[in-house]
Order: sequence, then C-alpha cells, then structure tokens
Amino acid sequence: MNWPPHGSNPKYLYEAIDIPMPEEIIDFSANINPLGPPSELKEQWMDMFHRIIDYPDPHATSLRRSIAEIEQVDPQSILIGNGGAEVISLVSRLLAGKNVLIVQPAFSEYEKSCRVNECNISYHQLEEPFWTLDIGKLLHKIKKADALFLCHPNNPTGVQYRFEMVLALIKACKEAQCQVILDEAFYDMLDDYRTFIPYVEEFENLTIIRSMTKMYAVPGLRLGYMVAPPEIIRRAERFQTHWGINSLALAAGEVCIQNTDFLQETRRYISEERQKLFAFFSKEGYQFSPSEVNFYLFRDPDCEDQLPLFRHFLEQGIVPRHTFNFSGLDGNWLRFAIKSSGENNELVKVLKKWKQPHT
Amino acid sequence: MNWPPHGSNPKYLYEAIDIPMPEEIIDFSANINPLGPPSELKEQWMDMFHRIIDYPDPHATSLRRSIAEIEQVDPQSILIGNGGAEVISLVSRLLAGKNVLIVQPAFSEYEKSCRVNECNISYHQLEEPFWTLDIGKLLHKIKKADALFLCHPNNPTGVQYRFEMVLALIKACKEAQCQVILDEAFYDMLDDYRTFIPYVEEFENLTIIRSMTKMYAVPGLRLGYMVAPPEIIRRAERFQTHWGINSLALAAGEVCIQNTDFLQETRRYISEERQKLFAFFSKEGYQFSPSEVNFYLFRDPDCEDQLPLFRHFLEQGIVPRHTFNFSGLDGNWLRFAIKSSGENNELVKVLKKWKQPHT
Repeated sequence: MNWPPHGSNPKYLYEAIDIPMPEEIIDFSANINPLGPPSELKEQWMDMFHRIIDYPDPHATSLRRSIAEIEQVDPQSILIGNGGAEVISLVSRLLAGKNVLIVQPAFSEYEKSCRVNECNISYHQLEEPFWTLDIGKLLHKIKKADALFLCHPNNPTGVQYRFEMVLALIKACKEAQCQVILDEAFYDMLDDYRTFIPYVEEFENLTIIRSMTKMYAVPGLRLGYMVAPPEIIRRAERFQTHWGINSLALAAGEVCIQNTDFLQETRRYISEERQKLFAFFSKEGYQFSPSEVNFYLFRDPDCEDQLPLFRHFLEQGIVPRHTFNFSGLDGNWLRFAIKSSGENNELVKVLKKWKQPHT
Repeated sequence: MNWPPHGSNPKYLYEAIDIPMPEEIIDFSANINPLGPPSELKEQWMDMFHRIIDYPDPHATSLRRSIAEIEQVDPQSILIGNGGAEVISLVSRLLAGKNVLIVQPAFSEYEKSCRVNECNISYHQLEEPFWTLDIGKLLHKIKKADALFLCHPNNPTGVQYRFEMVLALIKACKEAQCQVILDEAFYDMLDDYRTFIPYVEEFENLTIIRSMTKMYAVPGLRLGYMVAPPEIIRRAERFQTHWGINSLALAAGEVCIQNTDFLQETRRYISEERQKLFAFFSKEGYQFSPSEVNFYLFRDPDCEDQLPLFRHFLEQGIVPRHTFNFSGLDGNWLRFAIKSSGENNELVKVLKKWKQPHT
C-alpha cells in the first residue's frame, strides 16, 4: 500500500486505500486547533489583501523581533521558516552526511529530510503503551551521534516527557558533542509546559523548532521558526530561498502572537474534550496514548489488526491518521486530532457503530 | 556600501544609502504588473479565507494540471515552486559542485544560489548598450560548462533575444552535454514571444523557469514553476520542503491563469507606457536599454557617476533599483519598472527637476 506520508489532504488517503470518499467527511488526521484561527485574522483578512502585491520582507524583521520579545531571546537567534517543515529541511541540510539519532515514534519529516541529506540514521525506540523517555538507555547512543532529534511533546503520541529528563539529555548531549534538535511544534497545546528556549544561550548544541500553524490553525499559510545560536541561524539562512516566507504568513503571524487569551481558551477547550473522550474510551475498553495535547493514539485491543477499524472510520467519513510510517506503531494504532465537541461526538458515534456487530 | 541584493522593500535601500525615507514613495524597484492583480482575486479573497485552515496539497495536483493543459505539456514535467526563487534554488542544488556558466547581466539569484551549492561559476558578459546575444562567442565556453543560465527576456535589461539564436544555443548545448536553464520569468510581458516550453520534450538538457508573481502582481504570495524532463522534476522534488507552496498561492494561481484578457490588457498598457517614456528619454538625451518588457535600464550619459542621480530619485521618493550587483552594469545604470501612467509621470517630473540645475 502506498500510504500518504502525512495527515490532511484526505483524498490521497481514500485513493490509496481504494474506498470512495464520502461527500461529508471529518478530517481528524491533521492536528490543528479545533477553534480555528483567532477571530482577528478573519476580521483583518480583507485589509491584508494589499500585502500580496508587494514582495515579502526577506528578513522577516518585524515578526522576528516580535517573537524575540515574547520568547525573550536575541532576534539573531531566530529564523522564520516557510512552515516548521522548512525548518526541519534546513536543520537536516546542516547535518548533511552526519550521524543522526531519531527518538521514535516521531514526526516522519525528520527521517525523510535526513535521508535526502544523506545522513546516517539510527533510532531509539520508545515503548508503548506509555512511550516515556528514559535517557539511561539513550546515553551510549548519543556518543556515536552528531545530532539527536526529539519531538517534545511528542507527535504522534502526545506524550510530554519530564522536564528534568529532557534537560539532562541536553546536558549529556553537550558533553558528547551531539546537537539536540528539539521540536516544540505542539508545546503551546499543553496546559503546563516549560519551554527549552531559555537554554539555547547556555547550550550551543541546542536548536528548537517551533510551528505557528497548529495553535493558530493556519497550516495553509505556512509559518514556523527556529531558535538556535546565531552562528547556526546564519548557516541555515544561506540555504533559504529568497522571499521564502509569504507576506500573509508574516502578517498573520504578527496578529496571532499578540492574542494570549486565545491560547488559554484553546488549552481549556482541548483539555475538556480530551477528558471527555478518554473517559469514554476507558469505559469502552479502548486503548489510547496518555496524551496531554490535541491528538492521541488509539486502538481497539480486541483486534489483532486495526486496519478493519481504520476502514470502518473512513467509510463512515471519519478520517484518522494512519501510523504505518511511524516506527514502532506500524499501523497498530490510529492517530486522531481533538476536534470540536460536535465532531468528537461524531467520532464516538461511529465508534459505537463499530462495537455493535462485535458485541 | 552594503546594497540590498534585490528590489522591493525600499526601507533597506534607504537604510543602506543613509537617506531618510520620505513618507510618500513610489517603488520602481520591483518589476510587478502596474495594473495590480486580476480583479477576480480581490473579489474572491474573502471566500479564500477558509483555505488557510487546511494544509496545502503537497503535490499541487490541481494547479499542476491546469498549467500542463495551458502549456500543453505532461503534468509530470511540471514542478510548482514557492516563487521562481525556490525553483532557482532547486535547480542550483541539482547542479551542486558543477561548472556553471551565467550569461550576464542577469538576475542575481542564479549566482547566489550556485555559490551556496558550491558550483564553479564562470560568466559570459553581454555588452552594453544593446546586450544582444551572439552565440558565436559562447560556443567554446559551453564545452567546459555543465550548465548555462540564460534569462530570457533578460532581467535587468528587458532585452529579448532572437528566437533562432536561443534555439541554436540550446542545440549546441545539447551537443556539448550542457544543460540550459532558461528563465522565462518575464516572457508574458512581451507583446510577441515564442516560449521554449514545447522544446523540453525534444531537448532533455532544457529546463524552463517561470514566475507567476510578476504578471499577476502577487509577489507576496510566492508562486513559480519549472518545466523540465520528468526525471529532473523528480530529483528536484526530493529537495522541496513538504507543503512548501501555501494554499493561497495555489488557489490564486488557478484563478489567475484562466484570465487571458488580463494578459493582453497588461501588454497593451505596458507597451504604451514604455513608448511614452522612451520618447521622452530620447528627446531629453537619456540612455535606456532596448527593453520589450515592463522594466528598463536607464542612465544620464552626461554623468560619469550615476550615484548622485540615484540619490536625487530617492530623495524625491522615486525608488529605482540599483545595479551594483549586476555584473557589467556595476551601478552605471538604474533599473526602473514600468508602473502606472500617473506614477511614470511622477518619474518624468523628478527627472525634469534633475535637469534644471544641470542646464
């Protein structure tokens, strides 16, 4: 089966699995804020039209400064990217040909991008069903690695690791002369999170990846950034396409980051929905990852093979994310985004239908 | 002097030359359609808002098909890029470490991008004041080159070369096993142009670069494409960032290419303005390049140094493009876009002021 490499764009999934796509579907395969973009964005949308007529600022000076202020970091430690995916491409290119260690399961772009850059890739597999990070088992591996990719909180499990554990890992990597690429794409979905950005100054081996498209629900615009020592930023910038971040992404980014109420409202909403869903899953005997963010892994422990369940969802217009390209999951789990309350209820309904013929 | 590498974003130019930027300026430094984007785009803008909430189609299937139909070429021969600049980055990356020949003066991204990819760069300089292409002088150079960059019609001169001359060059390059990277970014500004896209099938050494942001005045959105043999497209795609072309660029691209009346109206407008300006320049004894598109080179032959004229324009709020990073021009010319009739008249006014103290 030629599975699509990512969520979203469900037509490619239906094509791959050869099921006719229902007219009405709900796409749970992309981990986007269920509340949609901050309302200011729609209000200002018409006024933003004129921005398409000018070239974007190739240095993204204004957004860079705004982020620097919020994150309390030197603007020269920030690179704005054409989505988090571009930041991953750039980081991987700087690691071309080197020994790279990926903590798995993880966002599949790390591996794809490292392969394109002919890195030697090795893996550290976290174990289901809790996927906790135990650095004891990692220490001998980082000695052989030039860089380590860690997604935190983790995509696809939604698991947050212990702060002290991650910090100890960064320290150990520094001693082993191993760079740490810490992907905080979903950090702002957590109720309680301490970012590692303040440590970039102390640890010159630390690079942080951020996405702005998940929280602000603007994946169509493409916007992410990287926080790293200025020397790494300068080397990465050389590989960027000129004018590579479009004007609307830059403008929208500035509007979005000012709205802190929106972050809190989102977290509260997701937390409530997650509790509601997890309570139902527990009661019905389904397995799920101990996620603290806006997506989770899910499976029916009564089924050896989850593919019939996956097909059931797709036929009913509920689109999960397959996990065939997440190492250690290998299709044995499905990933769902937490969507609006009504949409999550639809998922529950379709799940009830699944149980009916089985009970 | 630390000149900005490109036009647009005039604040960086004023900073570099240390002149306070007037409140009202007219930016002649970016070669964008003076009519602005097709009106449908503004009409549909509000409806396009929802597109930012979904990930873009990473394969750009729909736009790729639409372009393939218009250009009468296999969709597998097309790669959609995050602006023409990304296409140049990708092409250069495929040429990493190779011998590259650039016909100059030319868009400075070729050289910049080839340098990043550690190509060995050599040059073929066209001569002022006509900058015509004479391949006789090029033939021995292509034997030593793996690839040749040719901008046609040329940026910054606006000169169109003879069709037969370009075709003969492509043929000679094929025999010499030299790739031709033909940048047709401004082809659609010409009244009369035969594209070389139909030759991509016959000449596997031919890659064409197109921009959609000049004609449709959407440089803020970033949209360009590449037409080349499918094997080259596949190799280039591997280096692209996933979801690298934003949803609005994809949507706007489809709206724009349907409007053929807009192309004709633009060409007529530009042609009239160009004739008006060139008549004035001739009468007043100014020099200009024999441009057939929406920009031209300009100089005052009475001045040894054009910098005072450049400063005069900037002080008066008229922003030309400097030519210090165009080989063979070296600041000895200024480049101007053809803008709206009113804006071009402002340029003429400022030019009249320039003559006053000199006569």
